[in-house]
Amino acid sequence: MKQLLLALALISGVAVAQPTHVDPAALRDRALQDDTAWTIVRDLTTEIGPRLAGTNAEARARDWAVVRLKSLGFKNVRVEPFEIEGWQRGIERGEVLQPFPQPLVLTALGRSGPTPTGGLSGEVMGFGSVAELEAAPAAAIRGKIVFVWHRMGVSQDGSSYGAFHAVRTQAPAIAAGKGAMAVLIRSVGTSGDRLAHAGATRWPDGQKPIPAAALSVPDAEQLERMLSTGKSVSVKLTLTPRFTGKQTSGHVIAEIPGHDPDAGMVLIGGHLDSWDLGTGAIDDAAGVAITAAAARLVGQAGTPLRTVRLVWFGSEEFGPEGAEAFYEAHRSDEYVVAAESDFGADRIWKLDTRVSDPTNPAIQRLESLLRPLGIARGNNEARGGADISPFKGDGTPIVSLTQDGTRYFDLHHTANDTLDKVDSSQLRQNVAAWVALVAVAANDPEWPKKPDIQRKTAAK
Amino acid sequence: MKQLLLALALISGVAVAQPTHVDPAALRDRALQDDTAWTIVRDLTTEIGPRLAGTNAEARARDWAVVRLKSLGFKNVRVEPFEIEGWQRGIERGEVLQPFPQPLVLTALGRSGPTPTGGLSGEVMGFGSVAELEAAPAAAIRGKIVFVWHRMGVSQDGSSYGAFHAVRTQAPAIAAGKGAMAVLIRSVGTSGDRLAHAGATRWPDGQKPIPAAALSVPDAEQLERMLSTGKSVSVKLTLTPRFTGKQTSGHVIAEIPGHDPDAGMVLIGGHLDSWDLGTGAIDDAAGVAITAAAARLVGQAGTPLRTVRLVWFGSEEFGPEGAEAFYEAHRSDEYVVAAESDFGADRIWKLDTRVSDPTNPAIQRLESLLRPLGIARGNNEARGGADISPFKGDGTPIVSLTQDGTRYFDLHHTANDTLDKVDSSQLRQNVAAWVALVAVAANDPEWPKKPDIQRKTAAK
Repeated sequence: MKQLLLALALISGVAVAQPTHVDPAALRDRALQDDTAWTIVRDLTTEIGPRLAGTNAEARARDWAVVRLKSLGFKNVRVEPFEIEGWQRGIERGEVLQPFPQPLVLTALGRSGPTPTGGLSGEVMGFGSVAELEAAPAAAIRGKIVFVWHRMGVSQDGSSYGAFHAVRTQAPAIAAGKGAMAVLIRSVGTSGDRLAHAGATRWPDGQKPIPAAALSVPDAEQLERMLSTGKSVSVKLTLTPRFTGKQTSGHVIAEIPGHDPDAGMVLIGGHLDSWDLGTGAIDDAAGVAITAAAARLVGQAGTPLRTVRLVWFGSEEFGPEGAEAFYEAHRSDEYVVAAESDFGADRIWKLDTRVSDPTNPAIQRLESLLRPLGIARGNNEARGGADISPFKGDGTPIVSLTQDGTRYFDLHHTANDTLDKVDSSQLRQNVAAWVALVAVAANDPEWPKKPDIQRKTAAK
Repeated sequence: MKQLLLALALISGVAVAQPTHVDPAALRDRALQDDTAWTIVRDLTTEIGPRLAGTNAEARARDWAVVRLKSLGFKNVRVEPFEIEGWQRGIERGEVLQPFPQPLVLTALGRSGPTPTGGLSGEVMGFGSVAELEAAPAAAIRGKIVFVWHRMGVSQDGSSYGAFHAVRTQAPAIAAGKGAMAVLIRSVGTSGDRLAHAGATRWPDGQKPIPAAALSVPDAEQLERMLSTGKSVSVKLTLTPRFTGKQTSGHVIAEIPGHDPDAGMVLIGGHLDSWDLGTGAIDDAAGVAITAAAARLVGQAGTPLRTVRLVWFGSEEFGPEGAEAFYEAHRSDEYVVAAESDFGADRIWKLDTRVSDPTNPAIQRLESLLRPLGIARGNNEARGGADISPFKGDGTPIVSLTQDGTRYFDLHHTANDTLDKVDSSQLRQNVAAWVALVAVAANDPEWPKKPDIQRKTAAK
């Protein structure tokens, strides 16, 4: 304990050497006037637009990111490439053949299998939930087109997504396992817009992907209405996505170097890739922009105690490969916090943590800094974000600056995810909150540490 | 005058013979509990769906309409066919080639010309308005892809549509006249949804249609942003619509026969055709449903003085052929009122008229009946609707029960025009208002008449 106190005093001393540079309240308020984040969102969505992982567009986005991050003053800007299984959308068309012929709006789920080029036709069998599908005998499903609907509701904290997205991630594999010809789901989304919500599905090893698509919510309701007449409903689907083999994705990393290499690092970021239907404004140009703008403001105030490492992750949307690649390469790094912004651009309303001592005084100071922005303390079960998820298991402190998700799933993974959906005023509130987090986590000697770094600094 | 008073007394007598049947206030209140209109909107949009004029789908809609109107108790149900120049949508794709390659969401305007099958590419020249386009020299436009943007705002009464739709109806022909290769417009709509708004354009006689498409509002803003960089912007368009030659459309007509064939008729309706992108719920399943439900309730109350003629018009969306065909066939009919419901399904807030004497006591009685529904008297310059427009010029009394159009142009002519956008409670308010109109116009002896019928009845 004596050693620990000594270490804290030493670190404290380093921080004290830069007292005029780290007034987090002043930085926070400066962020409310700063348009760096807006400019990044605008330019990334305009100059690159959609940037599906493993495509040329994502590669262009990385090049763009390197140039932009350097011009914003970041150091050690580099790309860490990794491989993913590539997949690209093709033609996608759906239509009801009987009893009421008409087109359907749908989109292939990520890593859907293709139909024959000329499409496939079959009878629709409807289920109200994944549980109903699981309970149904394979004999009834074989050769059918399975359709799973649901009633996803709006939630401010996004918890309805957790409750409902199994319809997308699991129902296709369950249906395929029972011999279904294809799968349709009601989009995992909360809007009545006639735009389908994309998103990845998962196939167990050895499972051959079958065609799997999401209907827009109005189209799903139309199909449900047709089924409710008791008439036999048949549809035709044409989906020509392709598995493109091994493709390169990559993380773009940039830093604000700190004074003390032994004090641990602050890890923040968002993801650079996006689904291909929109321009990825809320998911997740906003996240990369918010975290970059915040890190930049903290860096402009002077060299922090700890290095701030900003990561614009590659290939978040397809699943865990990107997060896993980063964790494998960086698991031995000492992060005093890992935090990701990946839930849109609407105002932050809650500070969640995942730390061994939630009463930590530095966290309390952060809480005070956030309160004037309308942000209250939440729970100690922070979800973090998909890209930092592996760090949740190793004792790394996690912080979530939880955004208001009330309208997030109206837009998420749809063509509607475009710049005009970003509210620049709420975006600035996000940056202000992240500035507070980064300024405190990068400079406050009392900020929580990962247990092993705590031991390491105590042993100095 | 003595003859006129006598005639009124006679007509009055007929009406008095059915006094228990025509309590408009009771009928109005019954309409607030009636779901006939909802059922029509639901079934037409589900069982037929999109029904572009001159297609098999519109023909199926007419067959469906005949069956439904007979089952609702209407008499003299029949179809009056007419011919139109057919046009059908094909493939539609757009993409920015330079400087920022990415797809664009667009839809061909009605009666757009086609591009070559493989598409066409060209440099974009942007204009902020039709006036700017008109002022530009042809030499600057020849061989270019003209793009016209604008800033259509929301208006409750829909007047912004009148101010802005020249961008769609006129800009393509102006651009073609100056040698443009193709035309893009910002959708004439008020939503930020990434769905393009269809709608007809017009070509002067002898003008060869060029490819003409509407970009969704976010895509138009994206293109405008690219042009604002000063870089040369080029796009590729693939549009393969077809002119299909002479095709049959038709009006579906149904009646509640009245007592007195010399008392004139009440003409009400909406249009049965729809654009092909949505299922035509607000435009105009709602209108045919509201007017049919209102006429049915009035008919159920007993034989009215005057025949109520309900018309579900064909081919409203392509332009005046449908309205002109009806007028040519029915110009000598004696209508004491012509009224169309074609502005969605949101609540009615205003009673507009176009009559020689706006202080007419029957209209004042109607006004009193409408007030409890939240409807106030408007002006005496009722716009009527496109299908009854020719009657505006011949002295036929016109009434508009003006709907709240605040969100109408968010949905109008887009894929988003689907059943879920109809609020059943507001729909019932519409029916109640139309019941009041029909009950009064069909039964009140003092209701205004077309000048020549006034002379005719006076001469009896």
